[in-house]
Amino acid sequence: MPRRIRITVAYDGTDYHGWQIQPALPTIQGTIEEIVTGIEGWHVRVEGSGRTDAGVHAMAQVAAFSLENPIPVDNLRRAMNRLLPASIRILCVEDVHEGFHPRFDAVAKTYRYTIWRDEVCPPLEWRYVYHHPYPLNEKAMAEATRVYEGEHDFTAFAAADSKAAEPTSKVRTIFSSTLERQGSKLIYTVRGNGFLKHMVRNITGTLLEAGRGNIDPHTLPKKSGRTAPAKGLTMLSVEYPRSVSL
Amino acid sequence: MPRRIRITVAYDGTDYHGWQIQPALPTIQGTIEEIVTGIEGWHVRVEGSGRTDAGVHAMAQVAAFSLENPIPVDNLRRAMNRLLPASIRILCVEDVHEGFHPRFDAVAKTYRYTIWRDEVCPPLEWRYVYHHPYPLNEKAMAEATRVYEGEHDFTAFAAADSKAAEPTSKVRTIFSSTLERQGSKLIYTVRGNGFLKHMVRNITGTLLEAGRGNIDPHTLPKKSGRTAPAKGLTMLSVEYPRSVSL
Repeated sequence: MPRRIRITVAYDGTDYHGWQIQPALPTIQGTIEEIVTGIEGWHVRVEGSGRTDAGVHAMAQVAAFSLENPIPVDNLRRAMNRLLPASIRILCVEDVHEGFHPRFDAVAKTYRYTIWRDEVCPPLEWRYVYHHPYPLNEKAMAEATRVYEGEHDFTAFAAADSKAAEPTSKVRTIFSSTLERQGSKLIYTVRGNGFLKHMVRNITGTLLEAGRGNIDPHTLPKKSGRTAPAKGLTMLSVEYPRSVSL
Repeated sequence: MPRRIRITVAYDGTDYHGWQIQPALPTIQGTIEEIVTGIEGWHVRVEGSGRTDAGVHAMAQVAAFSLENPIPVDNLRRAMNRLLPASIRILCVEDVHEGFHPRFDAVAKTYRYTIWRDEVCPPLEWRYVYHHPYPLNEKAMAEATRVYEGEHDFTAFAAADSKAAEPTSKVRTIFSSTLERQGSKLIYTVRGNGFLKHMVRNITGTLLEAGRGNIDPHTLPKKSGRTAPAKGLTMLSVEYPRSVSL
Protein backbone atom coordinates (compact mmCIF):
# COMPACT_ATOMS: atom_id res chain seq x y z
CA MET A 1 0.00 0.00 0.00
CA PRO A 2 1.62 3.30 -1.02
CA ARG A 3 1.87 6.23 1.40
CA ARG A 4 -0.35 9.24 0.90
CA ILE A 5 1.58 12.50 1.08
CA ARG A 6 0.18 15.99 1.53
CA ILE A 7 2.32 18.96 0.55
CA THR A 8 1.86 22.68 1.19
CA VAL A 9 3.24 24.72 -1.68
CA ALA A 10 4.08 28.41 -2.18
CA TYR A 11 4.66 29.76 -5.67
CA ASP A 12 5.22 32.84 -7.74
CA GLY A 13 2.84 32.22 -10.64
CA THR A 14 4.39 34.87 -12.93
CA ASP A 15 6.27 32.49 -15.21
CA TYR A 16 3.77 29.59 -15.20
CA HIS A 17 0.69 28.82 -17.25
CA GLY A 18 -1.31 28.18 -14.10
CA TRP A 19 -1.54 25.17 -11.81
CA GLN A 20 -2.96 22.58 -14.20
CA ILE A 21 -0.59 20.43 -16.24
CA GLN A 22 -0.50 21.22 -19.96
CA PRO A 23 1.62 19.65 -22.67
CA ALA A 24 4.77 21.64 -23.54
CA LEU A 25 3.94 24.56 -21.20
CA PRO A 26 5.45 25.24 -17.77
CA THR A 27 2.81 24.74 -15.07
CA ILE A 28 3.04 24.35 -11.30
CA GLN A 29 1.46 20.90 -11.26
CA GLY A 30 3.60 19.72 -14.17
CA THR A 31 6.81 20.99 -12.55
CA ILE A 32 6.03 19.28 -9.22
CA GLU A 33 4.94 16.04 -10.90
CA GLU A 34 8.21 15.89 -12.81
CA ILE A 35 10.23 16.26 -9.59
CA VAL A 36 8.20 13.68 -7.63
CA THR A 37 8.25 11.30 -10.57
CA GLY A 38 12.04 11.60 -10.59
CA ILE A 39 12.22 10.77 -6.88
CA GLU A 40 9.80 7.81 -7.14
CA GLY A 41 11.13 6.34 -10.38
CA TRP A 42 7.81 6.10 -12.22
CA HIS A 43 5.02 8.54 -12.98
CA VAL A 44 3.35 10.05 -9.93
CA ARG A 45 0.14 12.04 -10.26
CA VAL A 46 0.03 15.18 -8.10
CA GLU A 47 -3.48 16.46 -7.30
CA GLY A 48 -4.11 20.02 -6.12
CA SER A 49 -6.85 21.53 -3.97
CA GLY A 50 -7.91 23.46 -7.04
CA ARG A 51 -6.48 25.09 -10.14
CA THR A 52 -5.04 28.55 -10.10
CA ASP A 53 -5.02 30.60 -13.33
CA ALA A 54 -1.88 31.57 -15.23
CA GLY A 55 -0.11 34.33 -13.26
CA VAL A 56 -1.90 33.66 -9.96
CA HIS A 57 0.32 33.13 -6.89
CA ALA A 58 -0.01 30.95 -3.80
CA MET A 59 1.20 31.31 -0.23
CA ALA A 60 -0.08 27.85 0.76
CA GLN A 61 -1.67 25.77 -1.98
CA VAL A 62 -2.24 22.15 -0.91
CA ALA A 63 -1.63 19.08 -3.07
CA ALA A 64 -1.28 15.33 -2.55
CA PHE A 65 0.23 12.27 -4.16
CA SER A 66 0.87 8.59 -3.42
CA LEU A 67 4.40 7.29 -2.98
CA GLU A 68 6.08 3.90 -2.47
CA ASN A 69 9.42 5.50 -1.59
CA PRO A 70 9.89 5.35 2.23
CA ILE A 71 11.90 8.60 2.39
CA PRO A 72 11.19 10.54 5.64
CA VAL A 73 8.98 13.60 5.12
CA ASP A 74 11.70 16.11 6.12
CA ASN A 75 14.13 14.60 3.64
CA LEU A 76 11.45 14.60 0.96
CA ARG A 77 10.78 18.30 1.55
CA ARG A 78 14.49 19.09 1.30
CA ALA A 79 14.95 16.94 -1.81
CA MET A 80 11.97 18.56 -3.54
CA ASN A 81 13.17 22.08 -2.71
CA ARG A 82 16.65 21.23 -4.01
CA LEU A 83 15.20 20.03 -7.33
CA LEU A 84 12.43 22.59 -7.82
CA PRO A 85 13.03 26.11 -9.22
CA ALA A 86 13.20 28.91 -6.62
CA SER A 87 9.75 30.14 -7.74
CA ILE A 88 8.11 27.01 -6.23
CA ARG A 89 8.77 26.09 -2.58
CA ILE A 90 7.50 23.14 -0.56
CA LEU A 91 6.66 24.56 2.88
CA CYS A 92 5.46 21.35 4.49
CA VAL A 93 5.32 17.59 3.75
CA GLU A 94 3.07 15.29 5.83
CA ASP A 95 1.96 11.68 5.79
CA VAL A 96 -1.85 11.62 5.68
CA HIS A 97 -4.47 8.87 5.61
CA GLU A 98 -4.74 6.97 2.36
CA GLY A 99 -8.09 8.46 1.34
CA PHE A 100 -7.01 12.09 1.58
CA HIS A 101 -8.08 14.16 -1.42
CA PRO A 102 -6.92 17.79 -1.50
CA ARG A 103 -9.95 19.02 -3.46
CA PHE A 104 -12.85 16.95 -2.11
CA ASP A 105 -11.71 17.18 1.51
CA ALA A 106 -11.17 20.96 1.53
CA VAL A 107 -13.68 22.79 3.71
CA ALA A 108 -12.53 26.36 3.11
CA LYS A 109 -10.19 28.40 0.93
CA THR A 110 -8.95 31.94 1.34
CA TYR A 111 -7.85 34.25 -1.46
CA ARG A 112 -6.37 37.72 -1.43
CA TYR A 113 -6.54 40.27 -4.22
CA THR A 114 -4.17 43.25 -4.01
CA ILE A 115 -4.65 46.55 -5.83
CA TRP A 116 -1.76 49.05 -5.82
CA ARG A 117 -3.27 52.55 -5.47
CA ASP A 118 -0.28 54.89 -5.80
CA GLU A 119 0.81 56.44 -9.07
CA VAL A 120 4.10 54.53 -9.14
CA CYS A 121 4.16 50.79 -8.51
CA PRO A 122 7.56 49.69 -7.11
CA PRO A 123 9.59 47.28 -9.29
CA LEU A 124 9.54 44.70 -6.48
CA GLU A 125 5.71 44.71 -6.31
CA TRP A 126 4.45 44.73 -9.88
CA ARG A 127 4.33 40.94 -10.25
CA TYR A 128 2.01 40.60 -7.24
CA VAL A 129 -0.46 43.47 -7.51
CA TYR A 130 -2.89 45.05 -9.95
CA HIS A 131 -1.76 48.64 -10.46
CA HIS A 132 -4.82 50.87 -10.46
CA PRO A 133 -3.96 54.47 -9.46
CA TYR A 134 -7.23 55.96 -10.72
CA PRO A 135 -10.03 57.41 -8.53
CA LEU A 136 -12.11 54.83 -6.63
CA ASN A 137 -14.65 55.23 -3.86
CA GLU A 138 -12.98 52.76 -1.52
CA LYS A 139 -15.70 53.16 1.09
CA ALA A 140 -18.33 52.05 -1.42
CA MET A 141 -16.11 49.11 -2.38
CA ALA A 142 -15.78 48.07 1.26
CA GLU A 143 -19.57 48.20 1.61
CA ALA A 144 -19.97 46.20 -1.60
CA THR A 145 -17.82 43.34 -0.25
CA ARG A 146 -20.55 42.46 2.30
CA VAL A 147 -23.17 41.46 -0.27
CA TYR A 148 -21.10 38.40 -1.24
CA GLU A 149 -21.17 36.90 2.25
CA GLY A 150 -23.50 33.93 2.77
CA GLU A 151 -24.81 31.32 0.35
CA HIS A 152 -25.42 32.54 -3.19
CA ASP A 153 -25.65 31.29 -6.76
CA PHE A 154 -22.45 32.65 -8.31
CA THR A 155 -23.27 31.75 -11.93
CA ALA A 156 -22.80 35.39 -12.94
CA PHE A 157 -19.27 35.31 -11.48
CA ALA A 158 -18.08 32.11 -13.16
CA ALA A 159 -15.76 32.20 -16.17
CA ALA A 160 -17.66 32.56 -19.44
CA ASP A 161 -16.28 29.28 -20.78
CA SER A 162 -17.49 27.28 -17.77
CA LYS A 163 -21.06 28.57 -17.64
CA ALA A 164 -22.61 26.43 -20.33
CA ALA A 165 -20.16 23.55 -20.15
CA GLU A 166 -20.70 22.50 -16.54
CA PRO A 167 -24.18 21.60 -15.38
CA THR A 168 -22.93 21.44 -11.76
CA SER A 169 -24.15 23.71 -9.01
CA LYS A 170 -22.79 27.24 -8.96
CA VAL A 171 -23.96 27.77 -5.38
CA ARG A 172 -21.14 28.61 -2.99
CA THR A 173 -20.95 29.92 0.57
CA ILE A 174 -18.73 32.89 1.37
CA PHE A 175 -17.76 33.00 5.06
CA SER A 176 -16.11 36.40 4.94
CA SER A 177 -15.47 39.09 2.36
CA THR A 178 -13.53 42.17 3.45
CA LEU A 179 -11.58 45.09 2.03
CA GLU A 180 -8.85 46.99 3.80
CA ARG A 181 -6.28 49.63 3.00
CA GLN A 182 -2.65 48.89 4.00
CA GLY A 183 -0.44 51.77 2.89
CA SER A 184 -0.54 51.85 -0.91
CA LYS A 185 -2.34 48.51 -1.06
CA LEU A 186 -6.08 47.97 -1.24
CA ILE A 187 -6.53 44.36 -0.17
CA TYR A 188 -9.61 42.23 -0.76
CA THR A 189 -9.69 39.01 1.26
CA VAL A 190 -12.34 36.37 0.73
CA ARG A 191 -12.86 33.03 2.48
CA GLY A 192 -15.43 30.53 1.29
CA ASN A 193 -16.25 26.83 0.96
CA GLY A 194 -15.29 26.86 -2.71
CA PHE A 195 -14.75 29.12 -5.69
CA LEU A 196 -15.73 28.84 -9.36
CA LYS A 197 -13.22 29.49 -12.10
CA HIS A 198 -12.40 33.26 -12.24
CA MET A 199 -14.83 33.90 -9.36
CA VAL A 200 -12.49 35.95 -7.15
CA ARG A 201 -11.17 37.93 -10.10
CA ASN A 202 -14.75 38.59 -11.26
CA ILE A 203 -15.87 39.67 -7.78
CA THR A 204 -12.86 42.01 -7.65
CA GLY A 205 -13.77 43.42 -11.07
CA THR A 206 -17.30 44.01 -9.76
CA LEU A 207 -16.00 45.71 -6.60
CA LEU A 208 -14.05 48.06 -8.89
CA GLU A 209 -17.34 48.93 -10.62
CA ALA A 210 -18.81 49.81 -7.23
CA GLY A 211 -15.71 51.93 -6.58
CA ARG A 212 -16.34 53.80 -9.83
CA GLY A 213 -19.95 54.45 -8.83
CA ASN A 214 -21.33 52.35 -11.68
CA ILE A 215 -23.30 49.91 -9.52
CA ASP A 216 -25.17 49.90 -6.23
CA PRO A 217 -22.84 48.56 -3.52
CA HIS A 218 -25.75 47.23 -1.42
CA THR A 219 -27.18 44.49 -3.64
CA LEU A 220 -25.60 41.38 -5.13
CA PRO A 221 -25.02 42.29 -8.80
CA LYS A 222 -26.70 40.14 -11.43
CA LYS A 223 -23.80 40.69 -13.77
CA SER A 224 -20.06 40.55 -13.13
CA GLY A 225 -17.65 43.40 -13.85
CA ARG A 226 -14.56 42.71 -15.96
CA THR A 227 -12.26 39.92 -14.75
CA ALA A 228 -9.47 41.59 -12.75
CA PRO A 229 -5.89 40.71 -13.86
CA ALA A 230 -4.50 37.40 -12.58
CA LYS A 231 -1.28 38.76 -11.07
CA GLY A 232 -3.09 40.59 -8.24
CA LEU A 233 -4.50 37.28 -6.95
CA THR A 234 -2.88 35.03 -4.35
CA MET A 235 -4.26 31.83 -2.85
CA LEU A 236 -3.60 32.26 0.86
CA SER A 237 -4.70 28.96 2.40
CA VAL A 238 -6.79 25.81 2.15
CA GLU A 239 -8.47 24.36 5.23
CA TYR A 240 -9.25 20.72 6.06
CA PRO A 241 -10.94 18.92 8.93
CA ARG A 242 -8.44 18.02 11.65
CA SER A 243 -9.01 14.30 11.14
CA VAL A 244 -7.14 14.29 7.81
CA SER A 245 -3.62 14.04 9.25
CA LEU A 246 -2.17 10.68 10.34
CA MET B 1 21.02 75.88 -23.07
CA PRO B 2 19.48 72.44 -22.38
CA ARG B 3 17.85 71.66 -19.03
CA ARG B 4 19.59 69.37 -16.60
CA ILE B 5 17.28 66.68 -15.23
CA ARG B 6 17.85 64.49 -12.20
CA ILE B 7 15.86 61.27 -11.88
CA THR B 8 15.47 58.88 -8.94
CA VAL B 9 15.08 55.31 -10.16
CA ALA B 10 13.98 52.04 -8.53
CA TYR B 11 14.67 48.75 -10.28
CA ASP B 12 14.55 45.00 -9.99
CA GLY B 13 17.95 44.04 -11.36
CA THR B 14 17.10 40.35 -11.87
CA ASP B 15 16.68 40.49 -15.63
CA TYR B 16 19.36 43.09 -16.40
CA HIS B 17 23.08 42.89 -17.03
CA GLY B 18 23.67 45.63 -14.48
CA TRP B 19 23.43 49.41 -14.75
CA GLN B 20 26.06 50.12 -17.37
CA ILE B 21 25.10 50.16 -21.03
CA GLN B 22 26.40 47.22 -23.08
CA PRO B 23 25.81 46.44 -26.73
CA ALA B 24 23.02 43.89 -27.33
CA LEU B 25 22.40 43.22 -23.61
CA PRO B 26 19.52 44.58 -21.52
CA THR B 27 20.90 47.06 -18.95
CA ILE B 28 19.21 49.66 -16.75
CA GLN B 29 21.15 52.57 -18.24
CA GLY B 30 20.56 51.33 -21.78
CA THR B 31 16.83 50.90 -21.21
CA ILE B 32 16.43 54.38 -19.72
CA GLU B 33 18.59 56.00 -22.44
CA GLU B 34 16.44 54.44 -25.13
CA ILE B 35 13.25 55.86 -23.56
CA VAL B 36 14.68 59.35 -23.01
CA THR B 37 16.18 59.36 -26.50
CA GLY B 38 12.72 58.54 -27.86
CA ILE B 39 11.18 61.47 -25.96
CA GLU B 40 13.92 63.94 -27.00
CA GLY B 41 14.25 62.83 -30.61
CA TRP B 42 18.04 62.41 -30.64
CA HIS B 43 20.50 60.48 -28.55
CA VAL B 44 20.53 61.46 -24.87
CA ARG B 45 23.26 60.20 -22.54
CA VAL B 46 22.01 59.16 -19.10
CA GLU B 47 24.65 59.20 -16.35
CA GLY B 48 24.22 57.30 -13.09
CA SER B 49 25.59 57.90 -9.60
CA GLY B 50 27.50 54.66 -10.04
CA ARG B 51 27.23 51.28 -11.66
CA THR B 52 25.39 48.41 -10.07
CA ASP B 53 26.37 44.83 -10.96
CA ALA B 54 24.17 42.43 -12.90
CA GLY B 55 21.37 41.25 -10.59
CA VAL B 56 21.73 44.10 -8.07
CA HIS B 57 18.58 46.06 -7.25
CA ALA B 58 17.93 49.70 -6.40
CA MET B 59 15.35 51.47 -4.27
CA ALA B 60 16.63 54.94 -5.22
CA GLN B 61 19.47 55.09 -7.73
CA VAL B 62 20.11 58.61 -9.04
CA ALA B 63 20.88 59.54 -12.63
CA ALA B 64 20.91 62.68 -14.74
CA PHE B 65 20.65 63.81 -18.34
CA SER B 66 20.33 66.99 -20.39
CA LEU B 67 17.18 67.74 -22.35
CA GLU B 68 15.97 70.40 -24.78
CA ASN B 69 12.34 69.22 -24.54
CA PRO B 70 10.39 71.64 -22.28
CA ILE B 71 8.05 68.91 -20.95
CA PRO B 72 7.06 69.56 -17.28
CA VAL B 73 8.82 67.22 -14.83
CA ASP B 74 5.59 65.48 -13.69
CA ASN B 75 4.62 64.75 -17.29
CA LEU B 76 8.13 63.51 -18.01
CA ARG B 77 7.94 61.11 -15.05
CA ARG B 78 4.58 59.79 -16.20
CA ALA B 79 5.75 59.43 -19.81
CA MET B 80 8.89 57.57 -18.76
CA ASN B 81 6.95 55.20 -16.51
CA ARG B 82 4.47 54.53 -19.31
CA LEU B 83 7.29 53.62 -21.69
CA LEU B 84 9.61 51.74 -19.30
CA PRO B 85 9.11 48.09 -18.31
CA ALA B 86 7.49 47.52 -14.89
CA SER B 87 10.86 46.41 -13.48
CA ILE B 88 12.19 49.99 -13.75
CA ARG B 89 10.26 52.88 -12.16
CA ILE B 90 11.03 56.58 -12.10
CA LEU B 91 10.18 57.76 -8.58
CA CYS B 92 11.09 61.39 -9.02
CA VAL B 93 12.08 63.85 -11.78
CA GLU B 94 13.59 67.24 -10.91
CA ASP B 95 15.14 70.18 -12.73
CA VAL B 96 18.64 70.74 -11.30
CA HIS B 97 21.44 73.21 -12.00
CA GLU B 98 23.28 72.69 -15.26
CA GLY B 99 26.49 71.43 -13.67
CA PHE B 100 24.89 68.61 -11.68
CA HIS B 101 26.76 65.32 -11.99
CA PRO B 102 25.21 62.30 -10.25
CA ARG B 103 28.56 60.60 -9.58
CA PHE B 104 30.94 63.49 -8.79
CA ASP B 105 28.40 65.38 -6.67
CA ALA B 106 27.33 62.41 -4.54
CA VAL B 107 28.44 62.73 -0.92
CA ALA B 108 27.12 59.44 0.44
CA LYS B 109 25.58 56.18 -0.70
CA THR B 110 23.77 53.52 1.28
CA TYR B 111 23.57 49.84 0.37
CA ARG B 112 21.71 46.96 1.98
CA TYR B 113 22.62 43.29 1.73
CA THR B 114 19.94 40.77 2.78
CA ILE B 115 20.61 37.17 3.81
CA TRP B 116 17.63 34.81 4.21
CA ARG B 117 18.33 32.57 7.21
CA ASP B 118 15.42 30.10 7.24
CA GLU B 119 15.53 26.71 5.55
CA VAL B 120 12.88 27.63 3.00
CA CYS B 121 13.12 30.88 1.07
CA PRO B 122 9.66 32.08 -0.05
CA PRO B 123 9.08 32.29 -3.83
CA LEU B 124 8.37 36.02 -3.54
CA GLU B 125 11.75 36.71 -1.86
CA TRP B 126 14.34 34.67 -3.74
CA ARG B 127 15.15 37.36 -6.27
CA TYR B 128 16.06 39.84 -3.53
CA VAL B 129 17.98 37.86 -0.94
CA TYR B 130 20.93 35.50 -0.61
CA HIS B 131 19.57 32.25 0.82
CA HIS B 132 22.01 31.00 3.46
CA PRO B 133 20.27 28.73 6.01
CA TYR B 134 23.51 27.30 7.44
CA PRO B 135 24.93 27.98 10.93
CA LEU B 136 26.41 31.44 11.45
CA ASN B 137 27.54 33.26 14.58
CA GLU B 138 25.45 36.35 13.94
CA LYS B 139 26.77 38.08 17.05
CA ALA B 140 30.34 37.77 15.74
CA MET B 141 29.16 39.09 12.36
CA ALA B 142 27.53 42.11 14.04
CA GLU B 143 30.81 42.81 15.88
CA ALA B 144 32.76 42.41 12.64
CA THR B 145 30.70 45.12 10.91
CA ARG B 146 32.27 47.78 13.17
CA VAL B 147 35.83 47.37 11.87
CA TYR B 148 34.81 48.79 8.50
CA GLU B 149 33.67 52.13 9.93
CA GLY B 150 36.01 55.06 9.39
CA GLU B 151 38.58 55.79 6.67
CA HIS B 152 40.38 52.74 5.30
CA ASP B 153 42.22 51.53 2.23
CA PHE B 154 39.76 49.02 0.74
CA THR B 155 42.11 47.60 -1.92
CA ALA B 156 41.54 44.10 -0.53
CA PHE B 157 37.78 44.53 -1.03
CA ALA B 158 37.86 45.76 -4.63
CA ALA B 159 36.97 43.48 -7.53
CA ALA B 160 39.96 41.43 -8.72
CA ASP B 161 39.77 42.92 -12.22
CA SER B 162 39.95 46.51 -10.97
CA LYS B 163 42.91 46.16 -8.60
CA ALA B 164 45.72 46.34 -11.13
CA ALA B 165 43.89 48.31 -13.78
CA GLU B 166 43.05 51.43 -11.80
CA PRO B 167 45.87 53.40 -10.19
CA THR B 168 43.29 55.55 -8.38
CA SER B 169 42.91 55.71 -4.62
CA LYS B 170 41.13 52.84 -2.92
CA VAL B 171 40.65 54.83 0.26
CA ARG B 172 37.01 55.24 1.25
CA THR B 173 35.20 56.41 4.37
CA ILE B 174 32.44 54.29 5.85
CA PHE B 175 30.05 56.35 8.00
CA SER B 176 28.09 53.42 9.36
CA SER B 177 28.16 49.65 9.03
CA THR B 178 25.51 47.65 10.91
CA LEU B 179 23.91 44.24 10.98
CA GLU B 180 20.43 43.46 12.25
CA ARG B 181 18.04 40.53 12.30
CA GLN B 182 14.47 41.17 11.05
CA GLY B 183 12.50 37.93 11.19
CA SER B 184 14.12 35.51 8.74
CA LYS B 185 16.31 38.27 7.30
CA LEU B 186 19.82 39.15 8.35
CA ILE B 187 20.33 42.66 7.01
CA TYR B 188 23.67 44.40 6.54
CA THR B 189 23.41 48.14 5.93
CA VAL B 190 26.42 50.25 5.00
CA ARG B 191 26.66 53.98 4.30
CA GLY B 192 29.85 55.55 2.99
CA ASN B 193 31.27 58.32 0.81
CA GLY B 194 31.89 55.86 -2.02
CA PHE B 195 32.28 52.19 -2.83
CA LEU B 196 34.69 50.29 -5.07
CA LYS B 197 33.43 47.69 -7.54
CA HIS B 198 32.19 44.60 -5.60
CA MET B 199 33.11 46.27 -2.30
CA VAL B 200 29.80 45.72 -0.48
CA ARG B 201 29.51 42.14 -1.76
CA ASN B 202 33.11 41.46 -0.68
CA ILE B 203 32.55 42.96 2.78
CA THR B 204 29.44 40.78 3.10
CA GLY B 205 31.44 37.71 2.06
CA THR B 206 33.99 38.61 4.73
CA LEU B 207 31.27 39.07 7.37
CA LEU B 208 30.11 35.55 6.52
CA GLU B 209 33.65 34.29 7.23
CA ALA B 210 33.47 35.97 10.64
CA GLY B 211 30.10 34.26 11.14
CA ARG B 212 31.70 30.89 10.39
CA GLY B 213 34.44 31.56 12.92
CA ASN B 214 37.16 31.62 10.26
CA ILE B 215 38.42 35.14 10.99
CA ASP B 216 38.78 37.47 13.97
CA PRO B 217 35.78 39.85 14.00
CA HIS B 218 37.76 42.60 15.76
CA THR B 219 40.35 43.56 13.16
CA LEU B 220 40.01 44.77 9.58
CA PRO B 221 40.83 41.70 7.44
CA LYS B 222 43.76 41.98 5.02
CA LYS B 223 41.98 39.65 2.61
CA SER B 224 38.37 39.59 1.45
CA GLY B 225 36.06 36.60 1.74
CA ARG B 226 34.25 35.35 -1.34
CA THR B 227 32.08 37.88 -3.20
CA ALA B 228 28.50 37.43 -1.95
CA PRO B 229 25.87 36.86 -4.69
CA ALA B 230 24.58 39.99 -6.45
CA LYS B 231 20.88 39.37 -5.91
CA GLY B 232 21.09 40.02 -2.14
CA LEU B 233 22.33 43.58 -2.75
CA THR B 234 20.14 46.67 -3.05
CA MET B 235 21.26 50.28 -3.49
CA LEU B 236 19.08 52.16 -1.01
CA SER B 237 19.96 55.83 -1.57
CA VAL B 238 22.40 58.40 -2.87
CA GLU B 239 22.88 61.68 -1.03
CA TYR B 240 23.79 65.11 -2.43
CA PRO B 241 24.44 68.53 -0.93
CA ARG B 242 21.22 70.51 -0.66
CA SER B 243 22.45 73.16 -3.10
CA VAL B 244 22.13 70.80 -6.07
CA SER B 245 18.41 71.37 -6.67
CA LEU B 246 17.17 74.37 -8.60
